Amino acid sequence: MKRKKAETRRYTNRTTIWSNMTTKELMKEMAHSGFNGKRLGEAQEIYKKMLDDKNCVKILSASGALVAAGMRNIFVKTIEEGLIDVLVATGGSILTHDLIEAFGIRHEQGTDKIDDVELQKKGIDRIHDVLLPNKGYVVLERELRKIFPLLPQERMAPSTFLKHLGKYIKDDKSIIRAAYENNVPIFCPSITDSILGFQLWMYSQHHELKIDPQLEIKEFLDMAWKKKNYGLIILGGGVPKHFVAGMLPVTGNNLKYAIQITSDVPQFGGLSGATLQEAKSWGKVAPDALITDIICDATIAFPLLISSLL
Amino acid sequence: MKRKKAETRRYTNRTTIWSNMTTKELMKEMAHSGFNGKRLGEAQEIYKKMLDDKNCVKILSASGALVAAGMRNIFVKTIEEGLIDVLVATGGSILTHDLIEAFGIRHEQGTDKIDDVELQKKGIDRIHDVLLPNKGYVVLERELRKIFPLLPQERMAPSTFLKHLGKYIKDDKSIIRAAYENNVPIFCPSITDSILGFQLWMYSQHHELKIDPQLEIKEFLDMAWKKKNYGLIILGGGVPKHFVAGMLPVTGNNLKYAIQITSDVPQFGGLSGATLQEAKSWGKVAPDALITDIICDATIAFPLLISSLL
Amino acid sequence: MKRKKAETRRYTNRTTIWSNMTTKELMKEMAHSGFNGKRLGEAQEIYKKMLDDKNCVKILSASGALVAAGMRNIFVKTIEEGLIDVLVATGGSILTHDLIEAFGIRHEQGTDKIDDVELQKKGIDRIHDVLLPNKGYVVLERELRKIFPLLPQERMAPSTFLKHLGKYIKDDKSIIRAAYENNVPIFCPSITDSILGFQLWMYSQHHELKIDPQLEIKEFLDMAWKKKNYGLIILGGGVPKHFVAGMLPVTGNNLKYAIQITSDVPQFGGLSGATLQEAKSWGKVAPDALITDIICDATIAFPLLISSLL
Amino acid sequence: MKRKKAETRRYTNRTTIWSNMTTKELMKEMAHSGFNGKRLGEAQEIYKKMLDDKNCVKILSASGALVAAGMRNIFVKTIEEGLIDVLVATGGSILTHDLIEAFGIRHEQGTDKIDDVELQKKGIDRIHDVLLPNKGYVVLERELRKIFPLLPQERMAPSTFLKHLGKYIKDDKSIIRAAYENNVPIFCPSITDSILGFQLWMYSQHHELKIDPQLEIKEFLDMAWKKKNYGLIILGGGVPKHFVAGMLPVTGNNLKYAIQITSDVPQFGGLSGATLQEAKSWGKVAPDALITDIICDATIAFPLLISSLL
Repeated sequence: MKRKKAETRRYTNRTTIWSNMTTKELMKEMAHSGFNGKRLGEAQEIYKKMLDDKNCVKILSASGALVAAGMRNIFVKTIEEGLIDVLVATGGSILTHDLIEAFGIRHEQGTDKIDDVELQKKGIDRIHDVLLPNKGYVVLERELRKIFPLLPQERMAPSTFLKHLGKYIKDDKSIIRAAYENNVPIFCPSITDSILGFQLWMYSQHHELKIDPQLEIKEFLDMAWKKKNYGLIILGGGVPKHFVAGMLPVTGNNLKYAIQITSDVPQFGGLSGATLQEAKSWGKVAPDALITDIICDATIAFPLLISSLL
Repeated sequence: MKRKKAETRRYTNRTTIWSNMTTKELMKEMAHSGFNGKRLGEAQEIYKKMLDDKNCVKILSASGALVAAGMRNIFVKTIEEGLIDVLVATGGSILTHDLIEAFGIRHEQGTDKIDDVELQKKGIDRIHDVLLPNKGYVVLERELRKIFPLLPQERMAPSTFLKHLGKYIKDDKSIIRAAYENNVPIFCPSITDSILGFQLWMYSQHHELKIDPQLEIKEFLDMAWKKKNYGLIILGGGVPKHFVAGMLPVTGNNLKYAIQITSDVPQFGGLSGATLQEAKSWGKVAPDALITDIICDATIAFPLLISSLL
Repeated sequence: MKRKKAETRRYTNRTTIWSNMTTKELMKEMAHSGFNGKRLGEAQEIYKKMLDDKNCVKILSASGALVAAGMRNIFVKTIEEGLIDVLVATGGSILTHDLIEAFGIRHEQGTDKIDDVELQKKGIDRIHDVLLPNKGYVVLERELRKIFPLLPQERMAPSTFLKHLGKYIKDDKSIIRAAYENNVPIFCPSITDSILGFQLWMYSQHHELKIDPQLEIKEFLDMAWKKKNYGLIILGGGVPKHFVAGMLPVTGNNLKYAIQITSDVPQFGGLSGATLQEAKSWGKVAPDALITDIICDATIAFPLLISSLL
Repeated sequence: MKRKKAETRRYTNRTTIWSNMTTKELMKEMAHSGFNGKRLGEAQEIYKKMLDDKNCVKILSASGALVAAGMRNIFVKTIEEGLIDVLVATGGSILTHDLIEAFGIRHEQGTDKIDDVELQKKGIDRIHDVLLPNKGYVVLERELRKIFPLLPQERMAPSTFLKHLGKYIKDDKSIIRAAYENNVPIFCPSITDSILGFQLWMYSQHHELKIDPQLEIKEFLDMAWKKKNYGLIILGGGVPKHFVAGMLPVTGNNLKYAIQITSDVPQFGGLSGATLQEAKSWGKVAPDALITDIICDATIAFPLLISSLL
């Protein structure tokens, strides 16, 4: 990234810390360091420029078990505080788990040093060191079955479905509800592989409410044609990253800002680890875009980044 | 895994090598070692048991840029030699890149130490250290536009579409063609985020050929209800892994055999790195299943494993 | 770890953030989440207990290019604020680079997208995205050659040498000087592979000042026999981790507290990624020790952790 | 690397496999692919050129628990077949574990899903999924105490000590013995952090046999001045990599060939993950050197590479 104060940024060992420092201050200091610390500090700077750019559409793409890992309130903050305009997710990263919490079943802290066969007998599902009572899925089915008949009985894109669904979620800590209330569309082109997708398919066997992931393309393109500058914050890669970065160029647009937080690395060639630099060769990221890639667990980098922007 | 010859397997330093040894022999030796070498050696043993089990449906799930990285012929071998019965893929792991190769544009060896803005100007897309002329996508669109009108003009699942498509691919090195000829279904529940999905959506604007990813659930369940023992070889995780492991329990089945080759690790909590052991807590993998997780680039582990089984 | 308020910690989605929150507050919130975020939050709790335990010797082990990456002031803070009693380092993680900075040559922010052959011609050494003028090593040699004659001309352990050296470092931002002034010994059992070790060897060819890494064992054991409770904060593994965890049991002691921050994972079997749990099998870590392993770049986790304790 | 047959190497999807193929053949095929598979294939090509270059000193550096993981016979092969001229190791990667095996205690296959506190009670040490009876260390002490008095009672470098020690090892599968018999020096500049280093220190308290790691510098430089072309095969990084690459330029030499097999990545800035390209900026690797970095568990890549060269 081009820097105005290159002079003051040049040396890594200007980085310092002090008592009761805020996350905002820490991020500023980290921008003076090296490796992923520097890059995370840069993420704050780039995000601020996105927020200052009134012509910027800020998209957050999410994969990985982020709600299971306790990031639910952080997502809600990004929506309520206007830090994002669009959310693109997988079923498992946010949607299913947000709904299960909304319906009263909680994700609990656990450990990965545990007998999984015993867990299965006790009806507990493990997500690394987080535990979820399997009845969460029973409650999910029961509650969705109450809501589905209230929705328009027609073919629709996942994002349209999620908007309608948001009206019926009562939990004010729900991401889906917050998105609905703040007019933030949630795209989910790969909804099919999730339990939410499966419940929708089950229901569609005997009803006219049918989810059509291909329609998500139209919905996304309608959004992507509207404004000029697009910015993307990527958590974890996967289909959401691929969808946003791949569809945007169709509209003649590309990313002017991009922040990638992932635990994957580029050396294995998969998209989730691919650098934002590489995306320039594809025309997905603008040649002069402000970009930074951070290799870090989102459970550390995401709350740190977002809290530094509030 | 339970072992008959536990006595002879106990010591790690029995592992040896010799001149002109075959990959089959090396894999047997590696099974005596430790860490990922041992696990890859075990993968050969588990795969052999799957092949011996005449009641076993062998599913291969693939994500990551595997065809870009040169694994195309290896996939074709797995199909032609009867090593797999079902393929589940993302658009980017196999489909788009297999078609581009089938239509005459090749993936080339390159480097990641290269100016991506320059590449973009030259019309070359980079996938880590593999380069693909962007005209591959132009040719893809042109050729697909010739084939689409020949297909049934109706709503169909991605797997149904891919089966029809296979008839019209002339390249005998094509995975999609080999799958068609050998009656191996290819499921692609997340086709929407790929260029193939986009081309299908474009065409569907004015034609009746419409791809419906949600229908993939029915197609998969029809397959998953048929036989008793299911085995899964996972390359890279993502939607294909989530789809297979999540949908199978719906039928009352679960995985009796599972081999996972991924570059991701469990410590970040994402599905692509989640262990097969963890999947037991969910009831996706049978309590007594034969399982092994290998953390390794598939470009090394996949050809080594498959060649050892021929 | 045992928890008094297990009830209030149970749910992952209690984690929240707010405007102008301090790093102390963020860390408390992260302790309620999952994956590495939770573990980093736990690190704050464990570190606090170490600080409350007046009978605890707090050891910090460091490997990786941490001073190059700008962590110098953070180390100095840990020393000046009494957060550590002992430092164990490699030559490259702290010592050489701390001295180069002390002698006036600075580490600069750069990029890894750069021609290394060109850098070599310009006399610039690259450490991922940090750049160091090679003249740093020329100045290092020149300045050390001035100091060496002032030191006792005898055989000594690296830690003894570093203590003597500290007296002659004028830069008040130097870790070696801060350690000297605050009576914090710095152990460096693998000094031989560093340029500092090489300079010492050169000088020893014609002088009686000779560094003997084997004497570090005695110096360490003398320290390790003194008090009862030992706590270790590990940055990056390597020889420092192996040395501390391996030598402590010789004294009949073991670790009662341990925090590990590393970018390595256990699945490849190397010591730098080995879990603290594994160290219990060796008797290096007490069965009921308070432990947590965080997989994260130290340039993020270290300033976050230390700032939360000030 | 410069390639004569660039034309035939260009396309990734030329890679194929067949029945009963040898590891030699597989490696040739992999050289046509992408990502780490390609790089491992290139390693075979580079290694062959090293073997053809009669003026080349071939150095193997090793860190990570490689003997624990069953690589002992592979190391012995590299020595007996003339594939290496010099070995540089850590105490834990080879030396301690080679001696324990030589003295009759074996490393056993195990699992990491196990109670480490129970293991400790049973006297079993865990190295990820490998188990070692703790009595190995008792036997090691007992046997070393028999051998130490037979050695020259004087101050010596670790490599000198290891050469003397080799004479007294009876196990013909021992790396230390094979090195002695084949005149391959073993350097171990960081011997201090290992149990072998500790046993030597204990003995030195009342005897004149004293190990001096700093003398390793002289021994290494004497070797490094002799011939013109140096090649390095790196397994895992750490002190051995740092020592070889750092000391070689002192002699005016640098690496003309280098192969790196590690599980670490460059993005965290540590030496173990640093690319060979980066080493060019330091002048450690020649500008036109033949180099390749493979990110892979050595328990897979090392036997595959070495078997392909026999």
